[in-house]
Amino acid sequence: MANPTAAMLVIGDEILSGRTRDANMHHLAQELTKHGIDLKEVRIVSDDAPAIVAAVRALSEGFDHVFTSGGIGPTHDDITADCIADAFGRSIDVRADARALLEAHYARTGLELNTARLRMARIPEGATLIENPVSTAPGFTLGNVHVMAGVPSVFCAMVASVLPHLSGGAPLLSQTLTVMRGEGDIADTLSALAADFPDLSVGCYPFQRDGAYGANVVVRGTDGARVDAAVTRLAGELGL
Amino acid sequence: MANPTAAMLVIGDEILSGRTRDANMHHLAQELTKHGIDLKEVRIVSDDAPAIVAAVRALSEGFDHVFTSGGIGPTHDDITADCIADAFGRSIDVRADARALLEAHYARTGLELNTARLRMARIPEGATLIENPVSTAPGFTLGNVHVMAGVPSVFCAMVASVLPHLSGGAPLLSQTLTVMRGEGDIADTLSALAADFPDLSVGCYPFQRDGAYGANVVVRGTDGARVDAAVTRLAGELGL
Repeated sequence: MANPTAAMLVIGDEILSGRTRDANMHHLAQELTKHGIDLKEVRIVSDDAPAIVAAVRALSEGFDHVFTSGGIGPTHDDITADCIADAFGRSIDVRADARALLEAHYARTGLELNTARLRMARIPEGATLIENPVSTAPGFTLGNVHVMAGVPSVFCAMVASVLPHLSGGAPLLSQTLTVMRGEGDIADTLSALAADFPDLSVGCYPFQRDGAYGANVVVRGTDGARVDAAVTRLAGELGL
Repeated sequence: MANPTAAMLVIGDEILSGRTRDANMHHLAQELTKHGIDLKEVRIVSDDAPAIVAAVRALSEGFDHVFTSGGIGPTHDDITADCIADAFGRSIDVRADARALLEAHYARTGLELNTARLRMARIPEGATLIENPVSTAPGFTLGNVHVMAGVPSVFCAMVASVLPHLSGGAPLLSQTLTVMRGEGDIADTLSALAADFPDLSVGCYPFQRDGAYGANVVVRGTDGARVDAAVTRLAGELGL
């Protein structure tokens, strides 16, 4: 049976302007691969409501799971929760359980739970909360969309809260052979390998190192014995 | 007048599987910002023809420019050029000018221009070539889509070849204020600022450092005097 599929939606002007490098995508990609969920697409859009709503709808329809990152804080540019509600035609308001989490947190820290911070308790109707062990303000799951924070430490913690509840498939295994030849020299060998192992994916990623051409050949699949067989054949054919 | 808009399409299983971190997006984002072209969306899709074709069509219709990265090498998994041709309903074949570039390159290096390498001279009908000063095999522009290599050194060189030919708008200027307070404490101030400067974007990016909460407030716009005015007001209001 095919593994469940997933897409990620990163919400953030700061990445599109080149100010910040996204760190969450790489983390999520690795965690999903381990969990046997195939990440098929990532989209990054700006803090723009129509763009977010359109992307949420398209990805929610196209994939088994959608993971979003960013835009759920207390400031005016945090519009993700409202956009998710809009995308699903749900109402949104401050919810008692989320408010209680924030009240307890700010009582402990001595900071004021002001109107801005209370925005972080706005949860769309019908959503379930995602625990945030780092800074309390929760994420949420609505339908097949998991809405998480953009701050990397919080994002990682929320992924760890969500993933155990999702059924995964067979983890994707991979082996890499590094070949110090131009990929044009090994292309025919790889093409024949890919044809003989249609259940595996054979990727070729070229690089230059100290002026010499090389390539990393990555063989991926869910059946470890098949990956082994393909890599053994390839190493033999390339004289490695 | 509004700046031209752009989207980026990254083609690569290796990023979605978490094996590799994308480096090209951050570079392109910074170069476009300097050039006055607004990067509005990034999509990352796998080496899957229907996914690539659908993304090319959607982004080409939605934005002034589309920049792609990856999938134009000599191996069986390099299917980008064929997908671009398909997306625009064009034929594709080895083209004489691209072939001549490769012939001269391989004559210099003493390597064989075999069938696999000749794949890199496959150019869709009606495209113009993008120069590759690093490793010769060209990219191409078809319609508003600029097709470039995934290897970062080659991608950067191709961006440098393409950008001077595109008309840009006003470069986006930004200033950052780092505030060592929780963003919930400054949210009202930022919200009022954003309302009074509708021509600017005011972003708030929280962080934790040594256990304390802080936020980078980034004010962006094309009019330097307005950005200055907003930052000066904000610094005053926050007592910085």
